[in-house]
Formats: sequence, C-alpha cells, structure tokens
Amino acid sequence: MGEARSSNNGRSGDASRISDYTVRRLSVYCHILEELESDGIEVVSSARLATFAGTNSAQVRKDLSYFGNFGKRGRGYGVSDLKRRIRSILGIDRLWRVVLVGAGNLGSALFSYKDFSHHGFQIVAILDNDPDKIVTRWDGIEISSVARCEEVLQNTPVDVAVVTTPASEAQAVVDRLVKAGVRGVLNFAPCKVEAKSGVHLRNVNITIELEGLSFALRAEEP
Amino acid sequence: MGEARSSNNGRSGDASRISDYTVRRLSVYCHILEELESDGIEVVSSARLATFAGTNSAQVRKDLSYFGNFGKRGRGYGVSDLKRRIRSILGIDRLWRVVLVGAGNLGSALFSYKDFSHHGFQIVAILDNDPDKIVTRWDGIEISSVARCEEVLQNTPVDVAVVTTPASEAQAVVDRLVKAGVRGVLNFAPCKVEAKSGVHLRNVNITIELEGLSFALRAEEP
Repeated sequence: MGEARSSNNGRSGDASRISDYTVRRLSVYCHILEELESDGIEVVSSARLATFAGTNSAQVRKDLSYFGNFGKRGRGYGVSDLKRRIRSILGIDRLWRVVLVGAGNLGSALFSYKDFSHHGFQIVAILDNDPDKIVTRWDGIEISSVARCEEVLQNTPVDVAVVTTPASEAQAVVDRLVKAGVRGVLNFAPCKVEAKSGVHLRNVNITIELEGLSFALRAEEP
Repeated sequence: MGEARSSNNGRSGDASRISDYTVRRLSVYCHILEELESDGIEVVSSARLATFAGTNSAQVRKDLSYFGNFGKRGRGYGVSDLKRRIRSILGIDRLWRVVLVGAGNLGSALFSYKDFSHHGFQIVAILDNDPDKIVTRWDGIEISSVARCEEVLQNTPVDVAVVTTPASEAQAVVDRLVKAGVRGVLNFAPCKVEAKSGVHLRNVNITIELEGLSFALRAEEP
C-alpha cells in the first residue's frame, strides 16, 4: 500500500504549493459537509469537522487557509457556504468531459456510477476493442473502436480518460490518449501506467487492493 | 498521492517479510499471465513479463523467489502454471465470504462487478440503513439493517467487509464489524478509516481520486 503513483508535475499556479494530502483532506471535508447539509446542519466548528475527518482542528484551519478566509473566529463555518467553496477549489462545480476506455464489466459499473456526474465528470465518449460492442450504444453514447481513438476525440473533445482496459493494453492506450490531447487519466487497469509530465494520472486498482487483502488474510490461516 | 493507509501489522508467518510492493507486483504479474493465457501463449520469459509489468526481470525473479522455485533457467515460465501458483500465493484461488455494507449507488456497482467473484470474494450478506431497502433482495441476498449487524454476521459468518457507506458512518460501522469478527476491510467510503492491529484494512477512494484529478486540472486553467 501507499505506493505513490500520480504524476502531478505539471501543476502550475497556486496549486503547485498544495500537497496531495491537503487536496485529499479537502475532499474528505467536502463529503462530510455534504452529509451535514443533507442532515439539515447549518454551522460546523473546525473541531467537529476535524473529528469526522480523522484529523485535528489546527489541520482543518491550515488546509483551508491556503484558499482564503473561511468562517468567523469562534462561530464555526457555514456548512453550505464552505461546501460550495471547497467544491469550487476542487473544480468539481464544473463539467469535465470524459472518454471511457474499456466497455467491459468495470467500465459498465463505472458508467452507471452516479458519483462520476456528481463530481462533474461526464462520460461523452466510449472506446473498446470488442467488435461485438462497437457501434452499440450505452445511454445513447456510441461505443467506438479504440483504433479510431484520435478521430473520436477530434469530434468529441475530452479532458479526462477513465481507463478500464486489460493490463496489457493500458499503457499503449494511455500513450495514444495523451497524444490526442487528454490532460488527465484515471486508470483502473490492474497495472502500472505512466504519462509524461503535465498529464495528471491517478491509479485506482480495485483488484490489486482485493488481492493484497486476500494475501494478508491467507497468510494468517493456520 | 500515495498516502499509506493499510494496517497490516497483524501479518504473521511467511507473509511478514513480504512487502506490499511485492504483493502488488504479484497481482500485476497474475493479471498479465491471465491475459497471456487467454491469448494462447504458453511460455513467458521474466524479461517479457517485466516489460508488461513496468519493472525489470531481476525484480520479477526476486519477487517470485520468496515463494519457491519457478520455471527453468533459460526456458521461461509456464504461463498457466505460474498463474495458478501466484493465484494460490495471493489466496484468490479460494473463497472469501464478504458482507457489503452500503447498498447505494457504489455498492450496487460493486455488487455487479464480476472481478469480485473472480478473485474469490463472494458477497453473502448486505447491510444498509435505508428502510426502503431493508428486506428487499439483490440476487436473492436480503438487505438487512445495519442495526442488526452482529446478528446477521452470526448467522452468516464473513471474512471481509466491503464498506460503501457515507463518510460519517464508515468508522462506526467498521468498529462494529471488527468486533463482530471481520478480519479484512475494503473501504470505499470517502474518508479515513482505521482498524485495530490484526485487521487488514485497505482504502480505495474513487471520488477522492476524481477530486484530486479535478483539482489538478482546474489549477491549470488560465
């Protein structure tokens, strides 16, 4: 666990001095604020937010201080306002256009995963290699051949690729996507994928986590 | 990125000297071997396996050497045999009984994710808080109230919990599950969750990865 795999070298502007840990905590605060808001809670102290987030209130205040002045001393934060401002900082209040590469089992699960659109990630194109899938549609979006990648992305520009191909195909696909102008990659293929500096790459390997868990459990058996 | 979040302190036996990195690479080798096998390829060199896995052949040989003698010098590895042996090392050739906690959108996507069962993770119980969902069934498995957690796990023992609850509920649920005998947790809730030493915990935060990507992309906008 804990293998660092993102390449964020291309960050510029204010973001360059913000660590990934801070960004992760902002995400956590945002999720907690959404839950508090849906519970009808209007104000939250940094101490309470910290408890839910598994950190301390000094850390909460420090994380927020990078982005301006939030809340009033001793009064706590307005839940809806802070949520809205963090969503804006994280860039999830706007729309990111996504190509889904790999229309298999995981691709299908992610396609129907509503948190994608809630976070502003809208799948606008789908690529796959399977002749049986090509030209069929998911919710109106045509599945195109990976071989037509460049043409598809020219007609349907995207910001981000979500990759769910087999391990052996992932790197070649990511290389093509990056050449075709993709700026961010969320890789679910069970392998290590790299991209040139300036492209934001995240690896989320569900099956690798499962196997790590399985290995640890098995090792304990008598 | 790369925040280490697993708690594997409880490992014993041979596994204690195997790093998480080695286990991750074994997972990657296994996926590549499965793809080679389905392409009808019978033998693979450590060099070729290393190339697909994004490492070098000395590393491949070292990773495998922990677990015995594989392949013959100069002849490469038998694909099916090596795959079978790595699946056994990883413990994915046997059945792990799983309780899914959180029958929402992500829970539903994971429930239909076939790689779970392919890796020996079989969902045998489902828990949720939503009165509209409780007592309904998914593929014959009844959704029970989280309040009945202990009773459900007594009647339907499990090894592992897959947690997809809201962030604010995840830690409390994990505490109860661990008390009820769960030995491994795969947490998808968008927050930091901890478990006592001896419980194997992995965090897979899809929305946090999405938000990290979004933050990095947004920071580059003019």
